[in-house]
Amino acid sequence: MLSDLPPQTDPGVLIDFRTSDDAGVYRWPGTGPALVQTVDFFTPIVDDPFTYGQIAAANALSDVYAMGGRPVTALAIAGFPEKVLEPETIRQIFLGGYDKLREAGVALLGGHTVRDPEVKFGYAVTGAVDPDRVWSNAGAKAGDRLILTKPLGTGIVGTAIKNNRAPEDLVAAAVRSMTTLNRIAAGILETFGDAVHGATDVTGFGLIGHATEIAKASGVSIAIATSQVPLLPGVTAIASVNRSGGLTTNRQHFGGGVDAGDVAADLLDVCFDPQTSGGLLVSVASAMADTIVAALRTAEVEASIVGAVAAHGAPVVLR
Amino acid sequence: MLSDLPPQTDPGVLIDFRTSDDAGVYRWPGTGPALVQTVDFFTPIVDDPFTYGQIAAANALSDVYAMGGRPVTALAIAGFPEKVLEPETIRQIFLGGYDKLREAGVALLGGHTVRDPEVKFGYAVTGAVDPDRVWSNAGAKAGDRLILTKPLGTGIVGTAIKNNRAPEDLVAAAVRSMTTLNRIAAGILETFGDAVHGATDVTGFGLIGHATEIAKASGVSIAIATSQVPLLPGVTAIASVNRSGGLTTNRQHFGGGVDAGDVAADLLDVCFDPQTSGGLLVSVASAMADTIVAALRTAEVEASIVGAVAAHGAPVVLR
Repeated sequence: MLSDLPPQTDPGVLIDFRTSDDAGVYRWPGTGPALVQTVDFFTPIVDDPFTYGQIAAANALSDVYAMGGRPVTALAIAGFPEKVLEPETIRQIFLGGYDKLREAGVALLGGHTVRDPEVKFGYAVTGAVDPDRVWSNAGAKAGDRLILTKPLGTGIVGTAIKNNRAPEDLVAAAVRSMTTLNRIAAGILETFGDAVHGATDVTGFGLIGHATEIAKASGVSIAIATSQVPLLPGVTAIASVNRSGGLTTNRQHFGGGVDAGDVAADLLDVCFDPQTSGGLLVSVASAMADTIVAALRTAEVEASIVGAVAAHGAPVVLR
Repeated sequence: MLSDLPPQTDPGVLIDFRTSDDAGVYRWPGTGPALVQTVDFFTPIVDDPFTYGQIAAANALSDVYAMGGRPVTALAIAGFPEKVLEPETIRQIFLGGYDKLREAGVALLGGHTVRDPEVKFGYAVTGAVDPDRVWSNAGAKAGDRLILTKPLGTGIVGTAIKNNRAPEDLVAAAVRSMTTLNRIAAGILETFGDAVHGATDVTGFGLIGHATEIAKASGVSIAIATSQVPLLPGVTAIASVNRSGGLTTNRQHFGGGVDAGDVAADLLDVCFDPQTSGGLLVSVASAMADTIVAALRTAEVEASIVGAVAAHGAPVVLR
């Protein structure tokens, strides 16, 4: 929607909507950190209103963590149908979001609520980032290892919930994952300094789509070892009957740049599956990869090395 | 929606959603200015998409000007029904908004667009403000004069447009007013320093509602001289047949604190009318009021002294 707007000349703009990064970055006057800014909101993907608020907050904050930033302030964005939801239901959505903002140490400054035929909830988030240490999509280097910090499959589970055929334990695992902030993962990654070359979070474009964005921005090829990709337990088995529209769109949009070898169709579905509040996908120096994963796992981040970066080849190669 | 959330303890929060101010204010680390942050978006109020985008931007930016700030960055927030609008129509909305962002010197960092049964458009805006010079609702002092910088009546005109009975010249005047940034008005007011005691912008609550907010936050009574209030030309005559739901809500919500004397019903309607991209309502030192209005008018801001601040009395007194 924004890509054909005329160019901007403000020298404060370090990253805007013209690259495929997770958030914009703006150099603030004075000696303080730069602003990293993002906005995200969506319709309910779980039945419980408090949980929905938590997920919406974790998802919106994630874009700041994915840029190497620390979220600082938030504005709530909400739409509710008139006289349909109980006031207590709406309150629980706000309280769930607020719960995650507080966990993240983020101040809620205000918000805007409108009457809306569909329920919507989310946040505009402002974070602080060292402008010389922004993790962009363009930082991956040939030889790097790729780390993913959360299991895949939340889109398939969301579709199964809508179809009333989601196994309870799978829903519980998906909710646990989606309500988990990327805060601790980002904090640990930050301690490794220059060994972190680039990052994004895996959201609407799925693992393959976001890997494609990294490949294109960095001018590299991303090889994914599908057997190493963390998955929500049992999600592959229900993938084929719970594909969302977004999964199909991702396959159409990104499939052309993918060499999928003989990866099984169900597993490929999960790799195309759009995620909500997904993990960080991080390109790190090969020599540090095992150490970084061990540090993440010590902090109970479900991280794995899922691939490697090559100089040449299809944007995304799956084996 | 936010008022019963648990308190925040972040010392960086200078103003949040708990007061009735136009935007939140947060002390940013370092030597730079504080952040002033706000979000606003709404459904179309005019037929032309470019104009709608302009109004949405001018309206969202206004909250920053009303706090004494200078808007710096914006994130677009949009909802469009699938396959209903022409892509060119959507593009014109974004271009209209972008036109006003550029006029304001604001950098667009990104945004979020969702499928939505109703069209919606607006922005989350971040501005810079000197934390010691924030114009709040709480600054009005007994003896002050009140200045309003735009004519009233845009809600009534919007309703008349929906009812297909809006006179053309009145629509043109309303559009001209709504697409005008409060930038020049705020810039001139800023040059008068400490003579400006407090400000807000007149939006959804109408003149009476926003005057009530000032009266309550400042512990004063606001006397409005209705004969001095600038009005869109001819709007009073069509008020009684073009009341919006918001006008009725404002009358119910704020009417109890109003002493309206024998002010004519049509004129009272206009004073309750919710505004879009309305003017600044500013409480200034009495001795400087005429000079400030003269400076504003020299810059083609349609400003008038519309009232005075008293120590005691009903929150809002109209004569």
